[in-house]
Amino acid sequence: MECSLRQIASILKNAGSIVVTAHIHPDGDSLGSMLGLNQYLLSCGKSVQMVIDDDVPRRYEFLPGSKNIVQPQDITITPDLLVVLDASDIERIGAVNRISRVPILNIDHHISNTKFADYWYVNSNAAATGEIILDLLNMENVAINSEIATCLYTAIATDCGFFRYANTTAHTHGCAAQLIKCGVRPHVISEHMETKPLESLTRTLEVLKTLELFFDGKIAAVSIEHSNADSADSTEGLINYPRNIEGVEIAIMFTFADQNTARVSFRSRSVDVSALALTFGGGGHIRAAGCTVIGSKDEVKTKVIKAAAQLIGGKL
Amino acid sequence: MECSLRQIASILKNAGSIVVTAHIHPDGDSLGSMLGLNQYLLSCGKSVQMVIDDDVPRRYEFLPGSKNIVQPQDITITPDLLVVLDASDIERIGAVNRISRVPILNIDHHISNTKFADYWYVNSNAAATGEIILDLLNMENVAINSEIATCLYTAIATDCGFFRYANTTAHTHGCAAQLIKCGVRPHVISEHMETKPLESLTRTLEVLKTLELFFDGKIAAVSIEHSNADSADSTEGLINYPRNIEGVEIAIMFTFADQNTARVSFRSRSVDVSALALTFGGGGHIRAAGCTVIGSKDEVKTKVIKAAAQLIGGKL
Repeated sequence: MECSLRQIASILKNAGSIVVTAHIHPDGDSLGSMLGLNQYLLSCGKSVQMVIDDDVPRRYEFLPGSKNIVQPQDITITPDLLVVLDASDIERIGAVNRISRVPILNIDHHISNTKFADYWYVNSNAAATGEIILDLLNMENVAINSEIATCLYTAIATDCGFFRYANTTAHTHGCAAQLIKCGVRPHVISEHMETKPLESLTRTLEVLKTLELFFDGKIAAVSIEHSNADSADSTEGLINYPRNIEGVEIAIMFTFADQNTARVSFRSRSVDVSALALTFGGGGHIRAAGCTVIGSKDEVKTKVIKAAAQLIGGKL
Repeated sequence: MECSLRQIASILKNAGSIVVTAHIHPDGDSLGSMLGLNQYLLSCGKSVQMVIDDDVPRRYEFLPGSKNIVQPQDITITPDLLVVLDASDIERIGAVNRISRVPILNIDHHISNTKFADYWYVNSNAAATGEIILDLLNMENVAINSEIATCLYTAIATDCGFFRYANTTAHTHGCAAQLIKCGVRPHVISEHMETKPLESLTRTLEVLKTLELFFDGKIAAVSIEHSNADSADSTEGLINYPRNIEGVEIAIMFTFADQNTARVSFRSRSVDVSALALTFGGGGHIRAAGCTVIGSKDEVKTKVIKAAAQLIGGKL
């Protein structure tokens, strides 16, 4: 059932024992939203446990309360409500889905939300789920301390690329202004986000060396060789290097997981790369899409770049 | 004479013919502030000319009105007021200082402002001069169109690193929220700022290859070889790569202008690198400073890194 924010507040108030979760591969928005909501629910006297079916990435460990997040096998409470944050699909919460059958309340901002929950509030105009949590807390006249503010600022800032992406609205900045008044120090958060291990810089260097331009510089591609799933974190954002080159219309990142499979990511400024991904059985958005392509490295590269050139030429 | 913002507005209203300038090596704040103020002054019926003793970098050419900025030799009006924006010192405006002797009005946000003008308004709490221009326009109840908004948003966003630096305040975000309501599309601006020529990426790659770590990874240094002043633009920001490595306390960038002179930049997260710069006759802020050091490359590197190690060891 679709709910208003007021109904969401009411369902939360009527619950006694709540498990709060968010999507696997947690990011700033899922973690910050969870930690902010957790503090509010605790202040209401609820029994709450935060659960993620994944590790918390090290760069988010500075978030107040993050060490209290547990994995599914360590749940100790018997909840009467499962709150799912920032996940558009039940599959996104991993094994948390298999805990005792209780009503699910979902708060999310993804337009692709599948409305899988018993109760849902989905606002795709929000830049981040953190924005919605702040709206909820404001509606409830919660006094926002600097810890909650830091969690929600991190949630909001990371999901809109520090106010650089198209999802940044006047309301997004309004939320940020309020949270700074509550004690957030923006540069402390941005520095935590920007600090990377040396290996990440080494990896950047390796990837930049693979840069190739095609089709009069309208297509730029980089390649990553790795079979180590753990390093996905350190390759995030690398596609922005080719994307930000003047004249590039389509940026491509090939990640060769093994000898016969490549994960391919696309970014564009204008052309619809979701159409490109779709021809290879993938999908995504107009300006960010991806697919998996089977074949040797050379085969994959050749056919993907040919298709990208066709897209630019209006012949896909 | 120090002025209130209201007095500044009054001086502007009483002038008939105004030259507006800003510092050499123009950045987003100086250009955006100038272009925003220019539109307001034109709407007041003033005769206005925008002048910079420098080229306008290509990445700011998207700013509405930027093509009307002239160089000092092309001034065609006889001003009765010179407005100097975002410059803390008269030297910073280059040859514009040598135009006919008229009263100078200075609007700036640098704490180091030398109060060189006849009339000045300096607000070092503002993240950008653009914030002050917006305050001025709001005080005057100016209807802010999307062109003015785009100029001022660019001014503000670029000077606070897209809301990532310590100078970002609740008021900064409040300004941004207002400007988005006036028609700014933040991602369009951020994309203009991020798009770089291919040579810039090639340069990044070259510089990353020079990375060296010292003193248990607490000092990280990169080196640039160039005698080409034009490429200063493409080296801006490169020091952030060593700065953002986990465990690094002092990041150093050596720019070897010729065989016997190095420009040295310092960044830190906590230690006072202005003290370090000072020992070599330079200066700056606690977390960002610089100096020029005479000597061969090896000599310069050895003595600078030794001094940096002493600073970390508390022995400088």
